[in-house]
Amino acid sequence: MLRGEITTAIRRALMQELAAVGYGRLSIEAVARRAGVSKTAIYRRWNSKLDLVLEVVAAAAGRRLPALDTGTLRGDLSLLFQVLAHALRHPLASQIIPDLLAEAARNPTIDETLQRVLRARQQEVAGELIGRAVRRGELPADTDPDVAVDLIVGPLYWRIAIARTPVTDSYLEALVESVASGLGAQDSVPRQRSAPDPG
Amino acid sequence: MLRGEITTAIRRALMQELAAVGYGRLSIEAVARRAGVSKTAIYRRWNSKLDLVLEVVAAAAGRRLPALDTGTLRGDLSLLFQVLAHALRHPLASQIIPDLLAEAARNPTIDETLQRVLRARQQEVAGELIGRAVRRGELPADTDPDVAVDLIVGPLYWRIAIARTPVTDSYLEALVESVASGLGAQDSVPRQRSAPDPG
Repeated sequence: MLRGEITTAIRRALMQELAAVGYGRLSIEAVARRAGVSKTAIYRRWNSKLDLVLEVVAAAAGRRLPALDTGTLRGDLSLLFQVLAHALRHPLASQIIPDLLAEAARNPTIDETLQRVLRARQQEVAGELIGRAVRRGELPADTDPDVAVDLIVGPLYWRIAIARTPVTDSYLEALVESVASGLGAQDSVPRQRSAPDPG
Repeated sequence: MLRGEITTAIRRALMQELAAVGYGRLSIEAVARRAGVSKTAIYRRWNSKLDLVLEVVAAAAGRRLPALDTGTLRGDLSLLFQVLAHALRHPLASQIIPDLLAEAARNPTIDETLQRVLRARQQEVAGELIGRAVRRGELPADTDPDVAVDLIVGPLYWRIAIARTPVTDSYLEALVESVASGLGAQDSVPRQRSAPDPG
């Protein structure tokens, strides 16, 4: 294997091991075995199990989403919810992050890294969407980004990652309308639509 | 200790051990030691570690909240968010549930129990609140309880248990307005309030 291939194999094996056994029971031996590399190959790249886990998980959770600018707030929300619904079914969201959140209460380094990654992530996915809607005049200029981000990310996270309830297309459509209304979208006529949108 | 006191001591010790070491590393010996009882006292009451954990966690997570009927939707939301913000800082929400969610992907019995408890819980806290608001005429009769529940519980759960961002009184006030608007509350005038409410 080339150097880059070894690193990729280690990253993939680490994510699989984390999903399978969790942080507490994870061993570097098992990651090396799964990746088909030596333990030395891992320790040459990362100083410790903690270093390895934090760097790989932060990179995976921080991977940039495709551009989500559809031209309207509702279009952006709809696309974002579809992307999120897919991402939240990945073991990263359903197993690895919950496991590390539990671990974070016992380990300040894990806690700080997770907070930094999750905040950057939510800022990326929701903050940019809100900024565009404000510039388009769809949301009030004084929209509170703090509340808005939680309102956009929270309901779908709760449903898929915590309550583990299935998500249908009609659910996602209804959620777009509810979240847009909750954000104070100017053209929001959630219950009866009197005329088609001009744009 | 009396029989009831022994059971209470075991329950308390189990929750503390779960928060301290997580499900994977939890041992019945450590729970017995912390509770000051014999292992036999535990096995007389529960068949296995899994039985013990699921019964105690389900009982703790399923404990009924105080009555939340304040007479208005916004009042109910405000009180619920205060209660939730407190509850979500408990180790049950910040450590034990995330740990068991990660474990659930490896263990169908944990998965089913958690789903049952979390759904019953969200139905209790959000479902009853929505029903009252519909009966008062504050929410449309065709309010989709499926979306409404996620919209009520999700943002605060995301903020406190996942993103771990502090919650202030003014944040909670803004969240009440946003969620009420998102639910389609009839008297919702979130940005400019033209006249004081008659009621």
